[in-house]
Amino acid sequence: MSGEDAPAQQQNAEETKQETKPEEPKTESKPETAANAAEAAATSAATEKVPEEEQFTYRSLVLSGYGGYDKVKLQIKKGKPVLKAGEVMVRVKACGLNFSDLLARQGLYDRLPSPPVTPGMECSGEIEAVGEEVTDRKVGDKVLVLNRCGLWQEVAVVPATHTFLIPDGMTFEEAAALPVNYITAYMMLFDFGNLRPNQSILIHSAAGGVGIAATQLCQTVKDVTVFGTASASKHETISQGGVTHCIDYRTRDYVEEVRKISPKGLDIVLDPLGGSDTHKAYNLLKPMGKLITYGAANMLAGQKKNLLAVAKTWYHQFSIHTLSLIQNNKSVCGFHLGYLDGEVEIIQQAMATLLDLYRQGKIKPRIDSTYHLEQVGDAMRRMQERNNIGKVILITEPMPEEEKKEEPKKEEKKKDDKKKDDKKKEEKKKEEPKKEEKKEEPKKEEKKEEKEEIKEEVKKEEEEEPKKEEK
Amino acid sequence: MSGEDAPAQQQNAEETKQETKPEEPKTESKPETAANAAEAAATSAATEKVPEEEQFTYRSLVLSGYGGYDKVKLQIKKGKPVLKAGEVMVRVKACGLNFSDLLARQGLYDRLPSPPVTPGMECSGEIEAVGEEVTDRKVGDKVLVLNRCGLWQEVAVVPATHTFLIPDGMTFEEAAALPVNYITAYMMLFDFGNLRPNQSILIHSAAGGVGIAATQLCQTVKDVTVFGTASASKHETISQGGVTHCIDYRTRDYVEEVRKISPKGLDIVLDPLGGSDTHKAYNLLKPMGKLITYGAANMLAGQKKNLLAVAKTWYHQFSIHTLSLIQNNKSVCGFHLGYLDGEVEIIQQAMATLLDLYRQGKIKPRIDSTYHLEQVGDAMRRMQERNNIGKVILITEPMPEEEKKEEPKKEEKKKDDKKKDDKKKEEKKKEEPKKEEKKEEPKKEEKKEEKEEIKEEVKKEEEEEPKKEEK
Repeated sequence: MSGEDAPAQQQNAEETKQETKPEEPKTESKPETAANAAEAAATSAATEKVPEEEQFTYRSLVLSGYGGYDKVKLQIKKGKPVLKAGEVMVRVKACGLNFSDLLARQGLYDRLPSPPVTPGMECSGEIEAVGEEVTDRKVGDKVLVLNRCGLWQEVAVVPATHTFLIPDGMTFEEAAALPVNYITAYMMLFDFGNLRPNQSILIHSAAGGVGIAATQLCQTVKDVTVFGTASASKHETISQGGVTHCIDYRTRDYVEEVRKISPKGLDIVLDPLGGSDTHKAYNLLKPMGKLITYGAANMLAGQKKNLLAVAKTWYHQFSIHTLSLIQNNKSVCGFHLGYLDGEVEIIQQAMATLLDLYRQGKIKPRIDSTYHLEQVGDAMRRMQERNNIGKVILITEPMPEEEKKEEPKKEEKKKDDKKKDDKKKEEKKKEEPKKEEKKEEPKKEEKKEEKEEIKEEVKKEEEEEPKKEEK
Repeated sequence: MSGEDAPAQQQNAEETKQETKPEEPKTESKPETAANAAEAAATSAATEKVPEEEQFTYRSLVLSGYGGYDKVKLQIKKGKPVLKAGEVMVRVKACGLNFSDLLARQGLYDRLPSPPVTPGMECSGEIEAVGEEVTDRKVGDKVLVLNRCGLWQEVAVVPATHTFLIPDGMTFEEAAALPVNYITAYMMLFDFGNLRPNQSILIHSAAGGVGIAATQLCQTVKDVTVFGTASASKHETISQGGVTHCIDYRTRDYVEEVRKISPKGLDIVLDPLGGSDTHKAYNLLKPMGKLITYGAANMLAGQKKNLLAVAKTWYHQFSIHTLSLIQNNKSVCGFHLGYLDGEVEIIQQAMATLLDLYRQGKIKPRIDSTYHLEQVGDAMRRMQERNNIGKVILITEPMPEEEKKEEPKKEEKKKDDKKKDDKKKEEKKKEEPKKEEKKEEPKKEEKKEEKEEIKEEVKKEEEEEPKKEEK
């Protein structure tokens, strides 16, 4: 998982044309800051471009700066990437969306290099070229890919060790849905969690990507009792998937619901929420119980960074003293696949086991919905608003013209939203006394806005419960 | 492990005679405080005594108050304990000493009821009587016992579920040495630790009871690399026991030594020390690594409670934020068998596996030394001064008269120590300006002394490194 070079290299492909998206102003272009220019100069020296292949172009999603859905733009890159030893070039067919991508867009995920950068940690496709020293991959191989970033584009260059052959019968969509969610669930359950027969587990966001993967993996162990939280509309689906007790966290106190059935508590809690939910998770553990926290979804409370939600999550973030662990005989673990950089062996071992389980029919990624690259905003929105059951997938196949025309409603709605947002901001700016007029740097400007958002959110918080759901 | 009633019941046996110990003043008698009298009155009503069996007596070690070695006194209890349903009476042959017993004597272990109380969490012996509803034990069964306390005496009453049949060929000494150390090591390695082939582990105090048990259990997994700390004189023994790399923590920085051999760090660290050593342990972990802390031996720095050591250990005690765990992919676990009260199933499962491993010749408790009940002070001293390699055992067999006479040197030395201590205290008291003369409660008096000890210890600390070693 050290493929940091790949996306950097590919970013240097010249951008020829900003592909237009219906919901975005047509005239946007890549900002040419001094830093960008310097970076481009530095890397163009390092990257040999093959002149005759300059007409090689591919579409790529690029995060242009931190913010809302519109910060991820579809661009066209030019120039065939040159492979280093050990690398392969993949013609991408499908990409997976993850919660980290949403956090990254808001600037809350430090494993994504600074914008402009192509996000995307997992994809599937066919190998189109093979670098030197690559012996176990050949052109035409169907692979799934796990990388730090850079996979939301038609062509991706990654170390061959980050690719895995797709088993017969697995679709590209399934293959793109597997790596992040299933490795995460697998490592949590079977390494940290040490899940064994007759144990009990609470899976938050049981209808999310990790939730569904974890539920399926729990079925591979005998007599595991799975408590799963999800909104009521998703209960039927997750129940069929293996959740023993579904809890609608919107209308019920999940701690009470668990205690009713398991008064002594649980063996494992998977916690993607963070904040005060981690405390609850800890208290729900039996002796020898394991709390495995793997995110801070509570931080994500809107399209743009919500500093109040971030601050609240931080403030309530769980901190534990070892003497308390000793007196309770408990374990607290943290997991994030994005920080397992360089642990190729761990990843490969987990992936081998998972692909085996797929072949045996014991796991099968559930695809919630499929979007074209052009629709990445809608895809992210679906996840952020927790409307998905299973995985949200991007496909690289260009969007047919008729489909583009078919979606005027959504787009109009979005435009309206945008207008409303802009209006709000303008009003706020007027109210705000003008300080620091000399320094008109964009960062400062952003900070001001964030402050205003906090004020606004405080009011909101008083009215409604913070929402949390499927990852 | 909920046998709290047993020791309480047995304490109500009348005390007839204070057995004399050579090293102690002959005239000591059980302090008759108001609280004791009330307690005795309350329980004598509840306990039916069989008059004709009042001449039933047995020797028992009793912690009379918190403090030095001399606080554990050998007394004679009178009256045959009456068994409740589910209980058995064991004629004790051998008892195990644990680090918790040393902490308990200083008032630093909250699982031991307040003095006067009989300590002892493990023993072995023969069943002498069986209560109602006990179907799987019979008189004459050789058993080992694990209980919250109350086992350092010739006769112990415990729930039958706290007893385990001793395998053929296992001596009473071995049987008394097994429960606490091996269950602790087993749960840490195979439940929290999830130890697997090819992994690496650091075992602090590798020559201590838990250290030796853990090292043996590591040998049951393929290709585990064991780093073990111990003073140089113990290296040969622990090396033969299975420690791959012995580190003399007195002359070497163990972090550096581990890094030399395993630059990437370790999969598991067992930490009985607490304080700043827990931080080091955390930093020594690889991604997916597990820190299992199971004590605060650093708190123990002398015969009596050393408030400075306690404060330092607390001050440096490790506290971890879940976001750090996530970003490092690490796990922090706390274990203490004493807090697994009531988890009969967990204990029974672990014990069954361990006795099986013993039968297969894969584990074998190492007895460091055997002391008579009369010598409990020496036994505790041996452990506290970290002179043991393996388990320190007490046997109930009375000490032959000639042995008592043979040990004048040690006893004289101890007397001298005691005299010196008393002199010091007297001097200190003189120096201390007399405040609060009205209230002469013993508690206040104790507090004063502790303050003085802190002052003294501060000086000592400046001169010498804090000692830590074999548990």
